[in-house]
Amino acid sequence: MEMIHEAGQYVDTVKRVCEAVGSEVTFRGTVHRVRDMSDFSFVVMRVERGLIQCTFQGDEIGGIKRSDIKDAMVLEVTGTVREEPRAEHGVEVVLSALSILGKPYDQLPVPLGKKYMGLSLDVDLPLRPITLRHPRKQAIFRVQGAIADGFAQYMQSQGFTHIHTPKIVVAGAEGGANLFKLDYFGTPAYLAQSPQFHKQYLAGAFGRVYEIGSVYRAERHNTSRHLNEYMGLDFEMAYIDSMYDVMAMETGMLKSVMAYVKEHCAEELAMLNAEVPEIKEIPTIRFHEAKQIMEEKYGHKSKNRYDLNPDEEVLLCQWAKEEHDSDFVFVTHFPSAKRPFYAKDDPEDPKLALSFDLLFRGLEITTGGQRIHDYQEQMDKLEARKMNAELFESFTMLHKYGMPPHGGLGIGLERLTMQLLGLNNIREASMFPRDMNRLEP
Amino acid sequence: MEMIHEAGQYVDTVKRVCEAVGSEVTFRGTVHRVRDMSDFSFVVMRVERGLIQCTFQGDEIGGIKRSDIKDAMVLEVTGTVREEPRAEHGVEVVLSALSILGKPYDQLPVPLGKKYMGLSLDVDLPLRPITLRHPRKQAIFRVQGAIADGFAQYMQSQGFTHIHTPKIVVAGAEGGANLFKLDYFGTPAYLAQSPQFHKQYLAGAFGRVYEIGSVYRAERHNTSRHLNEYMGLDFEMAYIDSMYDVMAMETGMLKSVMAYVKEHCAEELAMLNAEVPEIKEIPTIRFHEAKQIMEEKYGHKSKNRYDLNPDEEVLLCQWAKEEHDSDFVFVTHFPSAKRPFYAKDDPEDPKLALSFDLLFRGLEITTGGQRIHDYQEQMDKLEARKMNAELFESFTMLHKYGMPPHGGLGIGLERLTMQLLGLNNIREASMFPRDMNRLEP
Repeated sequence: MEMIHEAGQYVDTVKRVCEAVGSEVTFRGTVHRVRDMSDFSFVVMRVERGLIQCTFQGDEIGGIKRSDIKDAMVLEVTGTVREEPRAEHGVEVVLSALSILGKPYDQLPVPLGKKYMGLSLDVDLPLRPITLRHPRKQAIFRVQGAIADGFAQYMQSQGFTHIHTPKIVVAGAEGGANLFKLDYFGTPAYLAQSPQFHKQYLAGAFGRVYEIGSVYRAERHNTSRHLNEYMGLDFEMAYIDSMYDVMAMETGMLKSVMAYVKEHCAEELAMLNAEVPEIKEIPTIRFHEAKQIMEEKYGHKSKNRYDLNPDEEVLLCQWAKEEHDSDFVFVTHFPSAKRPFYAKDDPEDPKLALSFDLLFRGLEITTGGQRIHDYQEQMDKLEARKMNAELFESFTMLHKYGMPPHGGLGIGLERLTMQLLGLNNIREASMFPRDMNRLEP
Repeated sequence: MEMIHEAGQYVDTVKRVCEAVGSEVTFRGTVHRVRDMSDFSFVVMRVERGLIQCTFQGDEIGGIKRSDIKDAMVLEVTGTVREEPRAEHGVEVVLSALSILGKPYDQLPVPLGKKYMGLSLDVDLPLRPITLRHPRKQAIFRVQGAIADGFAQYMQSQGFTHIHTPKIVVAGAEGGANLFKLDYFGTPAYLAQSPQFHKQYLAGAFGRVYEIGSVYRAERHNTSRHLNEYMGLDFEMAYIDSMYDVMAMETGMLKSVMAYVKEHCAEELAMLNAEVPEIKEIPTIRFHEAKQIMEEKYGHKSKNRYDLNPDEEVLLCQWAKEEHDSDFVFVTHFPSAKRPFYAKDDPEDPKLALSFDLLFRGLEITTGGQRIHDYQEQMDKLEARKMNAELFESFTMLHKYGMPPHGGLGIGLERLTMQLLGLNNIREASMFPRDMNRLEP
């Protein structure tokens, strides 16, 4: 019988090495690249976060030959740290001992050791288990992880309860199309295209709830901005005055997330040349007003009366930048006809929904709004849309037994990552993207 | 055009009211229960977190009759706070103004206002959008949310990157059985029964990764401890010495999570009479040694040579409590035959896997271990098991190009919640459980 000891406090290896100039250190890592010089080699080690330059002097150390050291070997190394201004972090480690913990059986299929791998997506994506080892790819997903962490932290600070809603459901929240169908013990079921119904249930119970969960859309798209499986950052809040409370919460959250990312991923942001937006106030414009401005200011004649086309998202962000020095813009009061049946209509003009999108650097990243909370209003809207209310009994039981005014939103994590880092394709912001042609790895 | 202001800092309504004795407050909530006395009514309001007793004196306030106030109405109320030792929190609010924000259209189908609703699961689960409004049910899921938050926070403190892996996959990590099948644009696909392969990929890239994600098991079980969709708390770490590093990390995490839950959910724990375990060291016992102890100490003759039966999980936890005053016990060195093909075998006895379970108060809540990192070792094991290595090329590319020693584990969030709170059925620890007979709500 053995006793397990408390896990020690985590140490960032790069940081520890940088602080140890003049001393001996031992650490583990993977050989990122080897460069043979005539009488020594540079062995750049990739550790959990970052690279450390080592030098292997002479022909062998403790029985291991210098010529044995290959890219992708996993080593435990010991050496003395010395200042070396030309190396990354300004230090290098002069090796005095090493042992091999793991070894490759084949040459790497991609130039992992290069600063830029220069791979097309068609080459990169099938090799993701390997290409994600590249520092630039790691940087993307460390930022993405920090966005999720920062989101959760802010929601917690605002009294939101962390929820987990089922992804196997009987019907779609956004209507019947675009659902992945599933055999559930002989019964047809679907993958949730939004946590919408469940988060409304839970806003009725907990008041404020947030979720980080998978979202599924069986859309036959093949664009640079759509995935068929993505991560939704969702929240829903009760006892609101209006959808502006939801927008204010999102503004506060985004400020906090950007500060979190800056604090935790400074090196990654620098490596990716990413500029974190300065968020002061986010300008807000009504849908019809937006269309008018685009026509008057930019001579853009809209072809879509009910929604914003991608080129219009770009144009409106240009306007927000020029007029308000903002990377974000809220668009509100969309035509009700194209917003979901649970969206609350504006009492002053029922053709408009109290529903909004948030655009960021030319792309929609959020849809949200106030929801209907009155039972009669919800039943009337189902009827007006000729929808079968019986199919929604689980959902409308919410309204039947009393519901506070409430609203919320969903943010696409991959889209937010893509826009923050200036990536060209959303597949760059998904570790293992699922699209019409891709189910692996 | 309107400008959105920064979201204000969150205020806990109960706390604010308690601090405001002698002053006037305005807040929003839902009528949890009304009790009419002869010349006044008690109106207990349910706010985002907790209950606040109000008194409605006289027959009407501002045009709203006392007799109009019904359970499940949503109100904004204003009143003066006064001390009242018999009320919850020791205060009550004497109402001076109110307005109705939402109203029920039917009488509640369950006695929400009672301390215990006393519902069977068959009644409770279909009505979950309503029954989750009950304070005791809220308490369960606030604790569950805090477990997830505390888990994430600890993983972050230990340098783990937050990952999101796909849940639509081409093959099962645990073998072919028990998979939900899906039509993916005409191609057969499955719901992931574990993030296993992907988290190994990512341990190779990031060193340390954690995920909170959905897990699917199409098991034809109908027990009190199985769900067909559940939340997995997973982590995977590279550069380990042995599986004991993984177990030490889990021990540190559990200590931290329990402290987090205690700090953030003191009231909920008290309401549920839940005792948070004191974790000092977690005793560790080998599988065969465990079987032996059960026979020698408790006269239990095991019927299962390869695994622990449920009654044995109970017995071993009894042993851990008696001998080590611990609510947890690690069981290690399971027979290799029944552990997955990626588990590393013990070099000293290849019939045993370097794989462990963690039992908590009589139930297995974790499976984990060290994984094979050497390519030849993994290929040999696939061959020994007569598995088709070609089907696992995406996975074994990981080992082919060099991999550090690594290991990790998965924890069932619902099981951990259930055991912590002493619930009798895992459906009590899932907001909207999915089992063989249940796809709704």
